Amino acid sequence: MTAPSLDALRNVATAIRLDSIRSTSEAGSGHPTSCLSAADIMATLFFAEMRFDPRNPQNPEADRFVLSKGHAAPVLYAAWAEAGAFDRAELMKLRAIDSDLEGHPTPRLPFVDVATGSLGQGICASVGCALNARRIGSDYRTYVLLGDGESAEGSVWEAAEVAAHYRLDNLCGITDVNRLGQSRETQLGHGVEAYATRWRAFGWHAIVVDGHDLEALLRAYAEARRTKDRPTMIVAKTLKGKGVSVIEDKDGWHGKALKKGEELDRAVAELERQIAPGVPTPTIPKPTASDRSTPRFETSSLPPPAYKRGDSVATREAYGTALAALGADPRVVALDADVKNSTFSERFEKAHPERFYQTFTAEQIMVGAAMGLAARGAIPFPSTFACFLSRAADFIRMLGISNLNVKLAGSHAGVSIGEDGPSQMALEDLAMMRAVPNCTVLYPCDGTSAERLVTLAAYHSGPVYIRTSRPKTPVIYDASERFHVGGSKTLRSSREDVATVVAAGITVFEALKACDELTREGVSIRVIDAYSVQPIDASTLLASARETNRTVVTVEDHYIHGGLGDAVSEAVAPDGISVHRLAVLEIPRSGTPEELVDRFGISARAIVAAVRRVTATAGTRS
Amino acid sequence: MTAPSLDALRNVATAIRLDSIRSTSEAGSGHPTSCLSAADIMATLFFAEMRFDPRNPQNPEADRFVLSKGHAAPVLYAAWAEAGAFDRAELMKLRAIDSDLEGHPTPRLPFVDVATGSLGQGICASVGCALNARRIGSDYRTYVLLGDGESAEGSVWEAAEVAAHYRLDNLCGITDVNRLGQSRETQLGHGVEAYATRWRAFGWHAIVVDGHDLEALLRAYAEARRTKDRPTMIVAKTLKGKGVSVIEDKDGWHGKALKKGEELDRAVAELERQIAPGVPTPTIPKPTASDRSTPRFETSSLPPPAYKRGDSVATREAYGTALAALGADPRVVALDADVKNSTFSERFEKAHPERFYQTFTAEQIMVGAAMGLAARGAIPFPSTFACFLSRAADFIRMLGISNLNVKLAGSHAGVSIGEDGPSQMALEDLAMMRAVPNCTVLYPCDGTSAERLVTLAAYHSGPVYIRTSRPKTPVIYDASERFHVGGSKTLRSSREDVATVVAAGITVFEALKACDELTREGVSIRVIDAYSVQPIDASTLLASARETNRTVVTVEDHYIHGGLGDAVSEAVAPDGISVHRLAVLEIPRSGTPEELVDRFGISARAIVAAVRRVTATAGTRS
Repeated sequence: MTAPSLDALRNVATAIRLDSIRSTSEAGSGHPTSCLSAADIMATLFFAEMRFDPRNPQNPEADRFVLSKGHAAPVLYAAWAEAGAFDRAELMKLRAIDSDLEGHPTPRLPFVDVATGSLGQGICASVGCALNARRIGSDYRTYVLLGDGESAEGSVWEAAEVAAHYRLDNLCGITDVNRLGQSRETQLGHGVEAYATRWRAFGWHAIVVDGHDLEALLRAYAEARRTKDRPTMIVAKTLKGKGVSVIEDKDGWHGKALKKGEELDRAVAELERQIAPGVPTPTIPKPTASDRSTPRFETSSLPPPAYKRGDSVATREAYGTALAALGADPRVVALDADVKNSTFSERFEKAHPERFYQTFTAEQIMVGAAMGLAARGAIPFPSTFACFLSRAADFIRMLGISNLNVKLAGSHAGVSIGEDGPSQMALEDLAMMRAVPNCTVLYPCDGTSAERLVTLAAYHSGPVYIRTSRPKTPVIYDASERFHVGGSKTLRSSREDVATVVAAGITVFEALKACDELTREGVSIRVIDAYSVQPIDASTLLASARETNRTVVTVEDHYIHGGLGDAVSEAVAPDGISVHRLAVLEIPRSGTPEELVDRFGISARAIVAAVRRVTATAGTRS
Repeated sequence: MTAPSLDALRNVATAIRLDSIRSTSEAGSGHPTSCLSAADIMATLFFAEMRFDPRNPQNPEADRFVLSKGHAAPVLYAAWAEAGAFDRAELMKLRAIDSDLEGHPTPRLPFVDVATGSLGQGICASVGCALNARRIGSDYRTYVLLGDGESAEGSVWEAAEVAAHYRLDNLCGITDVNRLGQSRETQLGHGVEAYATRWRAFGWHAIVVDGHDLEALLRAYAEARRTKDRPTMIVAKTLKGKGVSVIEDKDGWHGKALKKGEELDRAVAELERQIAPGVPTPTIPKPTASDRSTPRFETSSLPPPAYKRGDSVATREAYGTALAALGADPRVVALDADVKNSTFSERFEKAHPERFYQTFTAEQIMVGAAMGLAARGAIPFPSTFACFLSRAADFIRMLGISNLNVKLAGSHAGVSIGEDGPSQMALEDLAMMRAVPNCTVLYPCDGTSAERLVTLAAYHSGPVYIRTSRPKTPVIYDASERFHVGGSKTLRSSREDVATVVAAGITVFEALKACDELTREGVSIRVIDAYSVQPIDASTLLASARETNRTVVTVEDHYIHGGLGDAVSEAVAPDGISVHRLAVLEIPRSGTPEELVDRFGISARAIVAAVRRVTATAGTRS
């Protein structure tokens, strides 16, 4: 195969510029100027550097391309259309409700691995794609295009650190330094050397080029391919709006489409004049042939939980044990942000060091890399203290949009961690995770359920969150007990139950204690372990509420909003069931776990008081 | 005043080492080794460099100290006790429920500006403290102590960028490079030059020192004070556990207290031998005398909203107008992450450029700097697209713990933004903000209420979130209309109402349309604008529900969990009211605002259908 001529590549660049301005003008919105600065980079990457099959973008050996500056979506769509992935006529449906060519790329499109559009995330995912090539032993390379404004996002430097740490020489970034941000000049303007200095300081090979010089771009890609033991960042000096003189390098043109009619027509004419006639379209190099098959794994081969009723184990520890066992499946990987000895993910590292990734104290890249790994077929478990997952909340939001198979694990939930104080307590994590509509939320109370739910999480399609606790809790389930997404366990039940108490995690034991105390007074309550917080077991809850005086008390080691109380309310509130929430109502403080659980109103004592109060008033209600 | 002798400083360092190990051993938990590496830095800073009054730490001219590595709290407490801020005997109550000396520092203590303990946040707050010195024209300096592991957090590099951009030569960081993280060696180990290279690449002056060489530290502080036009980072090579041989520079000693008894006694004896006898305690330099008074500002001096009923304006635009007017109060500042032309905060910049801070595309530093500014008396309004505030979710969590006066503003909420697609739509922001128990959440539907709520937010104590929308909406409130935190507006009401529809923001207009349509069919509904989502107007909602068939329908441009539906459920669910939620149930996509509002089930059509459905079944309910 001969290398494409520069004229041919230049024609491709012009063609995708034309498509970018036409499609955004047709849509009446979008970011044509951000596309035009990147068109030469895209043309050279797609038609002279990357090995891929436009008709099978998910070929496991194909080079990956991640558009981290997601607002340049039209240039991405134009490049894939030009490559033959779909009919170019589709481009004119950009941003329409019946088209998958959305305002920013999502994996609804077969050639998009992760949704982008929140800056600084694509590069994190690309680190995951590059790590995955090692996992599966493929020679595919990962390319990622960033904006210059985007480089202000801290997550970019988290990615830089981790990519350098893992010496990812199969990763090549290109920063499109077009000088202009959304509302003003970027922090470094056209200071390409300053960008290069930063990347070098973070351990990358950096190359400064003119981003409109096709030969220079091709040389830079080749240099990146030759560079060993470190990733490469190509810092490309470009002009926003390049090729259309009325908008080129001009302020005030971010995120604006050219008006259809004269404004667009003139721009089209100007670009069309740049096309060299009679030049053949370049041929795209194919990826290495692949005969990979999806690895098979039978969960029945996993050892059952080894706990006996009455044993005492922290759910976070059971998580680590289960995760290490799951490592028997080569798709399972674990990521840690320097707390592996607290989350017990170190057990996975010990068993499978080659599939354990350390991101140091950096949670955005931990979740972002997991997104890239999941997009390429891995089943990643990033784990840290649950409160620090909020550091990656925007990544989790985007993970939901991508519907990726990431299994987030947060330990040390709630006030029951004790003395470390509120900064280490996750009390809003259920709200964060439940707000992601396709995220499954599991919350085990004992070692057996923890192990079972970790396995469930691994093979349940889509994002899953597993919430674990710091303190040891008694084992209450036999190894033979079955759990499922959307399930619950009714732990205490009689015909005389005056109320249903719904608990999860450590509050299950408070509810059981409350039940025992009330039983001594001759009062029966139903106790439900809602281990599947999302989806919640609505039918069981509703049936139980109807059998127990239409009265439900929820109790959770979480703030009052967005958590278990919300889940239960949503399930039963349409039916006019009374739901009374016990939850943490204010910012907590340091203290022993027992003191805090009681002080913040989620102890057995609080449950007993609540049951007495609500059953006393239930009779008087209209 | 003469400079303290090195022996005197060394004795202080030893004293605070002793207090650090004694207090953590007494508590039975904590991070003594992380304190010991920093003790010489703390002793020299507190007793030879910083100007402050231990008895009045909030003196507006006093130098600030932020412990970004918050887990070293005991060394902070020891330094303040040694300085005379409180009785040293209190130190032995570390981490107890009846002490404010918590596991990680919070502003319950008068000498703590912002809560730390989530790494990479303190340096962001310190940027805000340094910006505030400029705002008030004070010569106070801000010092911030970071951990080396902490430097992996991307937010650190966001802070680096912004501090360099604003040439904050009144800011001095010290990185305690003790080599060991929580679970393993840090990313760069003792590579102090590598850290210095990074800080220089980000535009800082960097000085590498031996962090146990008191003279070198003092020289470095002096060099930082002399350095103009850029902040300084002192990269201090230290040993974790320094001074106690059994734990010094040893793996496996992160976050572990020495055991009381022989283990502690030996360590104490070893440190006590390091005390030079007969050396006077150093005197702390006092800050510049201050005669500052809190500026007075009368909100009655603000212009009333200038809209007439029937005008059309986007609430985000009204936000910008109100914010610019509020700038008449010198405490009000605005921060932007390069979207000022979308959030309309550019109107504030135009009116008050000296109090407008640009953090570029970096939301963590935007919120973090706002925390520092608020801690020093400013009333900061950081604004961006609401979805990108989730980038700073962990900062918002900590902001709640600090109970700071930060007024977060998120624009472009919900599917009603249209074509840009899901990555730009905030659909979980209400869940995030409501989960912060002391955060007020305001959500205006029209220009008048937007302006009024912005002013309410400014002078309401504590964190506030203002949610605004992209589309223009009709003005429905007169300029004379009154709004208050915890209030609501009943827009349609009759004795025949069959249900209460609770809406907010853009869905208010859908509810009004639905009401009109149902009225034509002879069906009356009550319509409530719940502009105060947190606290919600529980008494009005409950009274209304009781008057309307005990049936409530909520409708919101947000996912179903954690938002308006949750707020209303919590308010009325104890009373057994039926609550039916209309909200976005799945990941949305691009399309026109009208198409999306309808497709995702929150349009007038959906409300009409829901009212018909729930009133049809209400009669059949038991």
